Amino acid sequence: MSDVIEKAKTTAAPPKSNPSVAKAGAADEVLSKLAADRVVIEGVAPEIDGGRFAVKRFAGEDLTVEADIFADGHDKIDAALLYRETGESEWREVPMAFVENDRWGATVAFSKNGPAHFTIIAWRDLNALWRYEAKKKRDAGLDITLELVEGLGLVKDAISSERGTPEEVQATQALLKRLEGLSASGDKDGQYELLTAYETVDLLYCTGVRTNLSRYERQVPVWVDRERAAFSAWYELFPRSQSGDVNRHGTFADVEKRLPDIKEMGFDVLYLLPIHPIGVTNRKGKNNSLKALEGDVGSPYAIGGIEGGHDAIHPELGTFADFAHLVKAAEAHGLEIAIDFAIQCSPDHPWIKEHPEWFDWRPDGTIKFAENPPKKYEDIVNVHFYRGAIPSIWYALRDAFLFWIEKGVKIFRVDNPHTKPFPFWEWVIEEVRKVEPGAIFLAEAFTRPKMMKRLAKVGYNQSYSYFTWRNSKAELTEYLEELTTEECADYMRPNFFVNTPDINPVFLQTSGRPGFRIRLALAATLGGNYGVYSGFELCEYKPVKGKEEYLDSEKYEIRAFDWKREGNIREDIAFFNRVRNENAAMKSFTSLAFFKFWNDNVLYYAKRTPDRSSYLLFIVSLNPFDPQGGHFEVPLWELGLPDNGSVKVEALATGQSFRWHGKIQHWWLNPLERPYAVFRITP
Amino acid sequence: MSDVIEKAKTTAAPPKSNPSVAKAGAADEVLSKLAADRVVIEGVAPEIDGGRFAVKRFAGEDLTVEADIFADGHDKIDAALLYRETGESEWREVPMAFVENDRWGATVAFSKNGPAHFTIIAWRDLNALWRYEAKKKRDAGLDITLELVEGLGLVKDAISSERGTPEEVQATQALLKRLEGLSASGDKDGQYELLTAYETVDLLYCTGVRTNLSRYERQVPVWVDRERAAFSAWYELFPRSQSGDVNRHGTFADVEKRLPDIKEMGFDVLYLLPIHPIGVTNRKGKNNSLKALEGDVGSPYAIGGIEGGHDAIHPELGTFADFAHLVKAAEAHGLEIAIDFAIQCSPDHPWIKEHPEWFDWRPDGTIKFAENPPKKYEDIVNVHFYRGAIPSIWYALRDAFLFWIEKGVKIFRVDNPHTKPFPFWEWVIEEVRKVEPGAIFLAEAFTRPKMMKRLAKVGYNQSYSYFTWRNSKAELTEYLEELTTEECADYMRPNFFVNTPDINPVFLQTSGRPGFRIRLALAATLGGNYGVYSGFELCEYKPVKGKEEYLDSEKYEIRAFDWKREGNIREDIAFFNRVRNENAAMKSFTSLAFFKFWNDNVLYYAKRTPDRSSYLLFIVSLNPFDPQGGHFEVPLWELGLPDNGSVKVEALATGQSFRWHGKIQHWWLNPLERPYAVFRITP
Repeated sequence: MSDVIEKAKTTAAPPKSNPSVAKAGAADEVLSKLAADRVVIEGVAPEIDGGRFAVKRFAGEDLTVEADIFADGHDKIDAALLYRETGESEWREVPMAFVENDRWGATVAFSKNGPAHFTIIAWRDLNALWRYEAKKKRDAGLDITLELVEGLGLVKDAISSERGTPEEVQATQALLKRLEGLSASGDKDGQYELLTAYETVDLLYCTGVRTNLSRYERQVPVWVDRERAAFSAWYELFPRSQSGDVNRHGTFADVEKRLPDIKEMGFDVLYLLPIHPIGVTNRKGKNNSLKALEGDVGSPYAIGGIEGGHDAIHPELGTFADFAHLVKAAEAHGLEIAIDFAIQCSPDHPWIKEHPEWFDWRPDGTIKFAENPPKKYEDIVNVHFYRGAIPSIWYALRDAFLFWIEKGVKIFRVDNPHTKPFPFWEWVIEEVRKVEPGAIFLAEAFTRPKMMKRLAKVGYNQSYSYFTWRNSKAELTEYLEELTTEECADYMRPNFFVNTPDINPVFLQTSGRPGFRIRLALAATLGGNYGVYSGFELCEYKPVKGKEEYLDSEKYEIRAFDWKREGNIREDIAFFNRVRNENAAMKSFTSLAFFKFWNDNVLYYAKRTPDRSSYLLFIVSLNPFDPQGGHFEVPLWELGLPDNGSVKVEALATGQSFRWHGKIQHWWLNPLERPYAVFRITP
Repeated sequence: MSDVIEKAKTTAAPPKSNPSVAKAGAADEVLSKLAADRVVIEGVAPEIDGGRFAVKRFAGEDLTVEADIFADGHDKIDAALLYRETGESEWREVPMAFVENDRWGATVAFSKNGPAHFTIIAWRDLNALWRYEAKKKRDAGLDITLELVEGLGLVKDAISSERGTPEEVQATQALLKRLEGLSASGDKDGQYELLTAYETVDLLYCTGVRTNLSRYERQVPVWVDRERAAFSAWYELFPRSQSGDVNRHGTFADVEKRLPDIKEMGFDVLYLLPIHPIGVTNRKGKNNSLKALEGDVGSPYAIGGIEGGHDAIHPELGTFADFAHLVKAAEAHGLEIAIDFAIQCSPDHPWIKEHPEWFDWRPDGTIKFAENPPKKYEDIVNVHFYRGAIPSIWYALRDAFLFWIEKGVKIFRVDNPHTKPFPFWEWVIEEVRKVEPGAIFLAEAFTRPKMMKRLAKVGYNQSYSYFTWRNSKAELTEYLEELTTEECADYMRPNFFVNTPDINPVFLQTSGRPGFRIRLALAATLGGNYGVYSGFELCEYKPVKGKEEYLDSEKYEIRAFDWKREGNIREDIAFFNRVRNENAAMKSFTSLAFFKFWNDNVLYYAKRTPDRSSYLLFIVSLNPFDPQGGHFEVPLWELGLPDNGSVKVEALATGQSFRWHGKIQHWWLNPLERPYAVFRITP
């Protein structure tokens, strides 16, 4: 017999002697196992693929757990959420509350970065049942003598339940004494009042028997991140383009000089494109030409040369000491360095000679070049992960991550992870986290939706997304509702990049400065994480004709920019980063709701905390050319106000303050002035 | 290293010697375990609570399994469904086909009543990848010399793959010889043609290496029923009311006399209300009065008296020999006997003395009476299932089921199962099925939706439903769409009772004969299983005023009816049972679709086989008083016809044949003539 059944046997009514129990029970394990779950706990959410993958939260973020909980018949039941932070062996307990239709829920927040767990217990609450039935009979004027005897029995059961602190057990013993005294003197009203007193209810919650205690079969894993995994603003650059002179290869020292500028815009992650030695074999020339000319610097994604591979630095950028200096200086500016982690190798990478078993050799002794159809990369070859390469390449790549963690880097933007095996990522992320739980991995995967979601499931903290190509109101609404309300909201956190060295979106090519301000407003306020690739603030848009690529791409040459040139949108960027940092509602990606604005060229939405103490409204025109206006609904109902209620409004971009009276209001946006409006409202 | 990795190592390219593999691999079990699942298999459906409960199908019914299947990169993959009938130890294999968006599917049908399983395998298909890449290069006019060498290598790999029958391996060896011959003579076209020939593709499917073979982590359980579990028409009666004389207690012999009549209506299950001895203590009088008068027969749900309990027969009904005779006679009429299984006991049940530990005793030595709030049952007491009663009552009840199975009964309508522990049902149903896999359990649970679903999950083959109270078009559509398209469609099969001794629906009380024909049409055609309680065919409707109960209920007295009296709807019943039995589309509960009929008083729907070879349309008026008509859409698109196409129509109730030309048609129903129409259509 299981403990639960044994326990059940000791409760509620005096057990009769029944010799068949022990005998037959031992013989029927299935019966015992099933019987232990009399109270059903099912439909637990969030839970990813039956607990196969962790739910994601960041330290301090709310986690609301729900489950269907019920038992046979009409008895009262109760339930509690058990949770455990990283490193803890004991469960903490928080009561669950009934929601509706057999659904129960509780909310907790984990505080520590690392692996955490939760599970659920539920039980038949004979104490509550007793109160319910006794009250009903008493209210109907019926005799409750028997009920009082049974109530006393429940208190006795509590004393022998082995629950509660010594103080609580003592209090329960005192309660029993008082009840017996009242019983002896025949004071029925006194017994009833004492048994139903608030203090008694409270005490029996702690010491009362939990009859037929069921335990949910799984301990659901939760990965608790540091906040930056869910809330970050990235600035991406090519270090070699930071000298200000196309004829001089930029250095880490040049990057350092840019830090005040980047800090002024309010970013918190500075992401460096690959900083490793670059191969010379099949090196790409400017504008992705197949032949490099004398002096062409090549693509930094062609990693590895005679100077070394993934654990080396391109000599022209500087030394490891210079790199360490940059990391420190960035930190001093509130910026965390992220590096690019691209697994492919140039044909000159040392691994090719050291580990031929990691590569795909053809019958003629050559290596297959990398392809990402329809793109071809003649200057790189891919490693493989199985056959002779397992587990040695797995270890080598893990060690490459750990190498850079030792150098002070904790954020990795991983190039094309969907072309490497999912099991490798699941393993290596877990391995790296054992050393550095604060490591953050961003998956640069633009591929089919289920593959992108799988990468998030196996551990990626952040994911590239389709945001870059979602422009219309319908597209943005549908996509954001999927990301913030469907199951993936519990494990996938997009990072909304407005552009990247690989993506010069058609919208930005054709919409001018207002278009850049629009995409900035959307990315910074819809995304928990968002990013810009340098040049965005200057409204750089020149494409390779007919393609989503940049002309004279920094991927193949050194560029120089005047970072404060006229027409820049640095002030907009600084504004939105300030809005993000100064309003609690912005911390959560899922705090989003779309509301009605009667104009399909205008996106209108709110970000707000569950308690509504931080409440922002955003009106963003999606049309960069013509003024747009329209009526919209102020969500007064979310603030507990009637349709004719009023709210205080702060227009954050202009600093104006006023009040809105009534639910329907009107706004007007001129793209040449400002294609967005941000309001902070308070009732 | 796992087998899969070992296998992966042997494929595609010659492995280099790498001493670190064996050493490190053995040390890293997590790595090996993860690496074995390179091809992702997730989102498997149907699967109930992560495989915790069985999917339900009946022998011969289609089961379509789908899953998200994909791997990293752009390689070709392939997948197969593995399934195993009851008693089989080897898997059968059927190829899965790509559906869309990384979803794959396959359809099988199990043939044997009992527990079955399925799972999924998937692999990287290097043979298909080779064909894809070689064709692309050849079509572009590029040299494919290297590809041909690699293609030959794949055939060599197939020979050493240990897959395929001896004949297939021999054929592969012959293929290799021919290829080597062509290669020696420099015939590149010949090699390419042979490598891409249909026969080669076919052969390599059987013998080719399945690289990175992944196996879904679970073997998903399927419970395969006999057909009657999913497709049955029930007729329910009180045996004691079958004498035709209110003054004479009916017998099994009287029931036998009614068999031709019940067979004529086309039913296939004859369900007898409880046939056990009835207690005398607190016996109920007529119309549920608390005091029985001299001669009152009491409720048959007050089970047990001095004559015995759950394994005894009420002496006035007959003997076990009479019962056996009835079972046989019913069988001869194509009718299967179902009995009522009600666990409660009258205060005179032998168990109370034999097993006091199975009952809830109060401090004054009395037993708690049964309640099902707001109803009270003073003539019965409930057993309990834990404390001193576990496992002895579990065994006793299992033995009661087995007792009746020995007597030839395989169908049990279980009374109020939701007031007994779910673990008990899960255990006892499994136990009974070990002896009789064809046993069918119908759950008479009218309670909260999740409890009803849980009973189906733990094993009940059929469930009472809310159908009895769903009358409007919106209600019926919403409820049927839930039942036939949501997850519960894979484990819950409702039995649509139009009435029961406990439920005299308001609709039937107030709608006259047309109302009875409407509810019959709906139940018989919407439900895979449906049932009527005798008297329905006579349009019996007299209620206890203001209640959904029958006046002069047979639950408390013997009644007598003229079973062919005027105004009966026996012909309608016979018609619908004929439609059910003669049309393949009716066999499946989920073959339902609702279509447009522009009148909210008319429900219009189809039942059709997946191949559309059996296609029925139903037009049912929901208004029993006034004629109703309207335009409706003939679902020509489901038959591959254009909007102006035409179909042959057989109006089954009238025997007329005609054609409909074009998608929009009109129909008219007069409740006094016939409130329904049934059409069989063929293109």
